Amino acid sequence: MSKHLKLSIPSLENKIYFNYGGQGPLPKTSLDAMVESWNKIQELGPFTENVWPYISREIISTKQKLSDILGVSISNIALSENITSGMVLPMWGMRFDDNDELLISDCEHPGIVAAAREFCRRNNIELKIFPIQKIRNLNDKTFLDSIREYITINTKAFIISHVLWNFGFKIPLKKLYEELKRLKNDNYLLIDGAQSFGHIGIADEVKYSDLYAVTSHKWACGPEGLGAVYVSDRFLDFSDPTIIGWKSLKKEQGIYEPHQNILHKDARKFEIATSCTPLLAGLRESINLLEKDCSEEKKNAHICKLSNYLSEQLKQLKNIDLVLKNPLKNGIVSFDIQDLTYKKQEIVKELSKKRIFIRIVEDPDWFRVCIHQMTTLEEVDLLIKEIQELIM
Amino acid sequence: MSKHLKLSIPSLENKIYFNYGGQGPLPKTSLDAMVESWNKIQELGPFTENVWPYISREIISTKQKLSDILGVSISNIALSENITSGMVLPMWGMRFDDNDELLISDCEHPGIVAAAREFCRRNNIELKIFPIQKIRNLNDKTFLDSIREYITINTKAFIISHVLWNFGFKIPLKKLYEELKRLKNDNYLLIDGAQSFGHIGIADEVKYSDLYAVTSHKWACGPEGLGAVYVSDRFLDFSDPTIIGWKSLKKEQGIYEPHQNILHKDARKFEIATSCTPLLAGLRESINLLEKDCSEEKKNAHICKLSNYLSEQLKQLKNIDLVLKNPLKNGIVSFDIQDLTYKKQEIVKELSKKRIFIRIVEDPDWFRVCIHQMTTLEEVDLLIKEIQELIM
Repeated sequence: MSKHLKLSIPSLENKIYFNYGGQGPLPKTSLDAMVESWNKIQELGPFTENVWPYISREIISTKQKLSDILGVSISNIALSENITSGMVLPMWGMRFDDNDELLISDCEHPGIVAAAREFCRRNNIELKIFPIQKIRNLNDKTFLDSIREYITINTKAFIISHVLWNFGFKIPLKKLYEELKRLKNDNYLLIDGAQSFGHIGIADEVKYSDLYAVTSHKWACGPEGLGAVYVSDRFLDFSDPTIIGWKSLKKEQGIYEPHQNILHKDARKFEIATSCTPLLAGLRESINLLEKDCSEEKKNAHICKLSNYLSEQLKQLKNIDLVLKNPLKNGIVSFDIQDLTYKKQEIVKELSKKRIFIRIVEDPDWFRVCIHQMTTLEEVDLLIKEIQELIM
Repeated sequence: MSKHLKLSIPSLENKIYFNYGGQGPLPKTSLDAMVESWNKIQELGPFTENVWPYISREIISTKQKLSDILGVSISNIALSENITSGMVLPMWGMRFDDNDELLISDCEHPGIVAAAREFCRRNNIELKIFPIQKIRNLNDKTFLDSIREYITINTKAFIISHVLWNFGFKIPLKKLYEELKRLKNDNYLLIDGAQSFGHIGIADEVKYSDLYAVTSHKWACGPEGLGAVYVSDRFLDFSDPTIIGWKSLKKEQGIYEPHQNILHKDARKFEIATSCTPLLAGLRESINLLEKDCSEEKKNAHICKLSNYLSEQLKQLKNIDLVLKNPLKNGIVSFDIQDLTYKKQEIVKELSKKRIFIRIVEDPDWFRVCIHQMTTLEEVDLLIKEIQELIM
């Protein structure tokens, strides 16, 4: 399954790569597709009557692909530059009343945390933290038992990742949605999809969120600088765009014309202005390659087989703590090493000298390995062998 | 001067192009530079210890180039996705007091106008419009006479373009700055540099603004999806970032760590998160090509010779109104045609059938022709001939 795909990705020729959750490697034909798109834009445009139908088709076909993967309507999808702008931009327009609170999990990316803090500071809203890191025996049941204690009648919105970036736990999105709805109807679930999109199937779950932000450049192996965000119909009503540009507007009208109802009604109201159109072709090509490589079922089986194998093998080594218990359900394997004689960063450096790449996530301070559909058993074995030698 | 440059731009092979102010055509070697950068990132990374020094050098050398052109320090420059996000993002963090007003010219892009309206609506601030379109015999003196009537003690910030997008008038930035300072010191000048960067020399003037946003993809002929913004030291103190991401933060720290002073002190606090690094190499290459083609002095002389020639020739045609009086001082020539037997858009369409591309700007409804350093006398003559035939 994975051999042909792997050979089409130049970056994997000279390294053993486990950082798909940081940035995925770009297949050669994805770069070719971007170059072709640039050439097409130059041939037709760059700014002519003839270029707009091409650009419009590029946007629509990309959103169509995203709408299949996310299981939502194309009119609920806006394109963005990255996850952060996809998450934070629509979030900044939320309308809060007195006593409304914003709840955020303690396993969110520091950028989202800082943006949420600034939003609350400037709008005089209380930010509450939901502590997942402290839950013992984290599973769907303990997660839901715990969240019940934190969701109150004042919880207006809840920010959490679908798959936690630091240790890979997958939130039971539908059940979380049901928990949130038990107290009242006008609260909102804002999901960071950085570690889910391109990694696991999400088509049945995105619809239970009000905002779901994804990026091209991680597990989907597309180019950097392109993201997308799903916003629910009710979120479209609940939030105003903050950084408005020509893409948010129905038309480029004069300053003295009436300025009511000037914004698109659909998710485009959260898009801004000129972005890099050729990236769209690169993302579509990467998604197509991953999909052609194998079915979602086979992909998941392959990833889980290797991640559970890795975690079983790591357990055999002394002083290694796995963050999650087996069986793991996706490709993120996080662990800690006790009583290290040198700094964690040194381990990463030593591995990189052998052309093996893993990373440390900063909150908390853990090693993270990402296993994708192109990862092989030989690569995992090599990683285990090298870790073993380093900690002996 | 212009022949060699023109031959290096594939888009100009099959058309006569006058839309540099909409989007500039991309030279072949700029696309090559981006492909090379993508390959380098894949070879070293995409997410490894080895890739960061390369990405850091790419960012710094691009900001260095921008700092030369803008005549400001590198620490006052943030990279952005486009002009709108460059303008609006730092603008959204401005701290206004009761009675403070936001002033905006009536020659601004509809995206900026809509964003300014939304900012004022949500923060309960009065938006005042400075009417340039109504000024008779627009020149530096009439402009300054007029603005004196609109700047009051309550004017906290003034939004205006350096070169007006709809008819090319260049604002006397230094004198405007002095006018603004006559009443008080704590007011701010926010400049849209969409039509100046890559078109005219701005190194002596940017420093008189508090925010100056530019884009790669117009007159600088770089790739789309990349912009930059200068923010003055005092603006850095006056404004908070709104969409915070990992690029705004000193480090990716834990949610339970202290969260005071977590942002960069310099302009990076207005940068967000992952963007498309390879675009940087494309912009640098485009700028280098334009600079190597001829000196700033020669460029300006060439552009003005042709724009004044075009406007003189248009004046000879009946029913044509030029928006500005000669001598024009840059490459934007805007005009109206009276008593047209068909719609304006039809003129643009008919010209495009002959592979000649100009555009209509929407506010007000005028034709706009952009002349760049690679434009030739033959192209201008052909445009005049075709317009003449269409309106006869």
